[in-house]
Amino acid sequence: MKQQTAQGRWEQLTQRPLLALAVAFAVAYAVPIVDNSAGHRLTYACTVVEWVVWATFATDYVVRVGLARRRKEFVRTHWMDLCAVVLPILQPLRLLRMVSTLILVGRRARMASQIQLTTYVAGAVVGLLMFGSLAVLSAERDSPDGNIRTLGDALWWSFTTMTTVGYGDHAPTTGLGRMVAVGLMLSGIALLGVITANIAAWFIARFEKDDVEERRQTEAIEALTAEVRALRAEVAELREVSGRT
Amino acid sequence: MKQQTAQGRWEQLTQRPLLALAVAFAVAYAVPIVDNSAGHRLTYACTVVEWVVWATFATDYVVRVGLARRRKEFVRTHWMDLCAVVLPILQPLRLLRMVSTLILVGRRARMASQIQLTTYVAGAVVGLLMFGSLAVLSAERDSPDGNIRTLGDALWWSFTTMTTVGYGDHAPTTGLGRMVAVGLMLSGIALLGVITANIAAWFIARFEKDDVEERRQTEAIEALTAEVRALRAEVAELREVSGRT
Amino acid sequence: MKQQTAQGRWEQLTQRPLLALAVAFAVAYAVPIVDNSAGHRLTYACTVVEWVVWATFATDYVVRVGLARRRKEFVRTHWMDLCAVVLPILQPLRLLRMVSTLILVGRRARMASQIQLTTYVAGAVVGLLMFGSLAVLSAERDSPDGNIRTLGDALWWSFTTMTTVGYGDHAPTTGLGRMVAVGLMLSGIALLGVITANIAAWFIARFEKDDVEERRQTEAIEALTAEVRALRAEVAELREVSGRT
Amino acid sequence: MKQQTAQGRWEQLTQRPLLALAVAFAVAYAVPIVDNSAGHRLTYACTVVEWVVWATFATDYVVRVGLARRRKEFVRTHWMDLCAVVLPILQPLRLLRMVSTLILVGRRARMASQIQLTTYVAGAVVGLLMFGSLAVLSAERDSPDGNIRTLGDALWWSFTTMTTVGYGDHAPTTGLGRMVAVGLMLSGIALLGVITANIAAWFIARFEKDDVEERRQTEAIEALTAEVRALRAEVAELREVSGRT
Repeated sequence: MKQQTAQGRWEQLTQRPLLALAVAFAVAYAVPIVDNSAGHRLTYACTVVEWVVWATFATDYVVRVGLARRRKEFVRTHWMDLCAVVLPILQPLRLLRMVSTLILVGRRARMASQIQLTTYVAGAVVGLLMFGSLAVLSAERDSPDGNIRTLGDALWWSFTTMTTVGYGDHAPTTGLGRMVAVGLMLSGIALLGVITANIAAWFIARFEKDDVEERRQTEAIEALTAEVRALRAEVAELREVSGRT
Repeated sequence: MKQQTAQGRWEQLTQRPLLALAVAFAVAYAVPIVDNSAGHRLTYACTVVEWVVWATFATDYVVRVGLARRRKEFVRTHWMDLCAVVLPILQPLRLLRMVSTLILVGRRARMASQIQLTTYVAGAVVGLLMFGSLAVLSAERDSPDGNIRTLGDALWWSFTTMTTVGYGDHAPTTGLGRMVAVGLMLSGIALLGVITANIAAWFIARFEKDDVEERRQTEAIEALTAEVRALRAEVAELREVSGRT
Repeated sequence: MKQQTAQGRWEQLTQRPLLALAVAFAVAYAVPIVDNSAGHRLTYACTVVEWVVWATFATDYVVRVGLARRRKEFVRTHWMDLCAVVLPILQPLRLLRMVSTLILVGRRARMASQIQLTTYVAGAVVGLLMFGSLAVLSAERDSPDGNIRTLGDALWWSFTTMTTVGYGDHAPTTGLGRMVAVGLMLSGIALLGVITANIAAWFIARFEKDDVEERRQTEAIEALTAEVRALRAEVAELREVSGRT
Repeated sequence: MKQQTAQGRWEQLTQRPLLALAVAFAVAYAVPIVDNSAGHRLTYACTVVEWVVWATFATDYVVRVGLARRRKEFVRTHWMDLCAVVLPILQPLRLLRMVSTLILVGRRARMASQIQLTTYVAGAVVGLLMFGSLAVLSAERDSPDGNIRTLGDALWWSFTTMTTVGYGDHAPTTGLGRMVAVGLMLSGIALLGVITANIAAWFIARFEKDDVEERRQTEAIEALTAEVRALRAEVAELREVSGRT
């Protein structure tokens, strides 16, 4: 068995509970937005759950810094995590808390070695679509000029934005809504890039296989050449022996 | 001649009749949507044809499971086919039946070894455009807010969606229409990826050719080296012979 | 000097005059659309020029078929040229004549070996933008619902279509205009693919260079190995000689 | 230490001051557009700063031409810089002066060897977004049909254009604004290409690593073959020796 660092063991142990907390956060974030007429008590409970989940991920980050062998380097390479931990304290906005938790969850998920790249990308896309729809809905619903007022419209708008289709039948009008839109657009471009790159890599791998085939032929020819060369050497030695006698 | 499995022989035999049935399905699906004032009898006949085609493809799937050597693995790797067979029984919606039959036809077409990738992609694009237009037309025509009311508008909208241009002069307003739109957008992104990957692979193959040229030079140098080495060996042996005498 | 076929010599000789004729066609096509109040005589003269240019390219095709060594294969691989020659006779529409001439010019331009791929793509994009704008303008100007009524709007619309931005502030409403739009969208997707592929090929070539460096190191190690092997062989022979004495 | 040319030393010395001047230009360009009610004196001061920055970059170009070893080749390969130096003299438009300075800054920044490609692309995107927003705002604000009247709308429009989403809720209506839009669209397509290419190159490099692994196996087999061949040779010599005695 491979020897693991204290940090590695911690990350493996806490992975599943943290994933469960991420799901709890998603539910707590969605409930007050979807159920607009939710009572004060439910909204309060959801806010508590959000803060608890964020605090757990923040604690996880602090523990990982503590367990890291080179603390300064860990903090330097994980500056995004640090921002996500510090920002909600300075500005306790709901959207900021959501983005912070998303970043912390995303960074932890990428660490899990058993998750494949395709699964990670697919999960990120679904998560971004869901949180983007909810965030835009909560930002646009109360705007007088807004045209995204139901969850269905918000989901539809998220899809047309992320695929860069952009019909314009629904578009955010508030500053907050537009910042969410910019995030979705950039994710959409990255998504397009990943899909194209994936297909291209697969295409090129197919091309390369022919190349490998060709290389094998080359090797076969080389082996044959070697055999011929060996034969010639044997003949040369035989000639030498017969010349001596 | 290569020995074929029972499954392989079945797939080759049934390929052409199944393709003909797929064309029949396309006609039966299109007629009641295009000819809006079609009589009750014609609509009924078309529905029967749709069910018969779907049932034939479902039977084909069951036969292939029966003929497969490793049944469990076959079912596991063909889970999409299984869904397409089971779903129309649970929910006999017209759109679902169409999507199921499209999936079954697409999976069988990909199996046909004589069809090239480019032909397959082109066929998929044309098929998706056609069925997407018809499905959106049937979903949007009766919506009070709908703006896609003729086949021409539906085709135009499909094109602007699949190429991710998205003017927004026509856009679906119903839930069903938007689900069709999401399908077209995702296909459009995949299409973009395939085209880019194809061109990229061709470009890189051109680059690689120079590489092959370079490799040939290397081989030529290696051959020359071998010759020189052989010469040196001969000289060494000659020196040895002269040293002995 | 390389021996050229009769066909090759013909293609080289006629290249420049045909290019000049293509420019004349562009002018003759543009004048009656841009100058809407052009007199009957000017419009008639432009139509004559268009027919003459098309007829010259058609003649060029016939001559090339006559000079080709394998006529059947030439016709089979140049079926698009054949369509472009035959179609304007069957349907003397202005748009069809323009598309036919564009195809014939494009095929001849690709034949010119001194034109690089980048130049060809750039030329095709500019040509498509220009002819697309003019064609959409002539199709939409007289439509009662049309919103593309000036050359500036037509050019702006072409650009937003080809880059797949698609604002929707201007969009074609007639069947003819939409067919032109579909052509521009498909060209835009191909253009995106070519640009991405070009950049990707350049990126990958940079990566590959490191690979080549690595291969050279491998070769150096192999050469060293060969030297060591030769030394060992010499030692073995020396041992043999000393064992004999 | 590497021997540097006079031109190289000049470029390294002037790099930081020129970058500071570029920032000053950005501020001077932004102030009169953002603060619409700016007094005559402030506007005049900003215009002076713009002219001074452009003049400094023009002087830098002239000095580099003077220091270049092959002057004609330098002018030929830097024709874009020459245009950017000459154009503002012929047409002292504000937009033209801005584009000229952007080109000169971009060319100098690409020269700085310590700036990585990713940083350069990110900087170009941010710069284009900022200047595009300001240019479109100044062009559209006074147009009667215009719908881009605040800095927020201009930034939002720039983003939707560059990512090719194109909602169409805001779109330029003046000729100048549309020319800026075309520039942003083309940059957006190039940006998409660079991102996709970057991801593709990274994907393919991962694929290639497996290839390298395979190559190492090949090499191992070759080494083994060589060993076997050497053994056989030794045996052959032994046979020869035993045959002699």
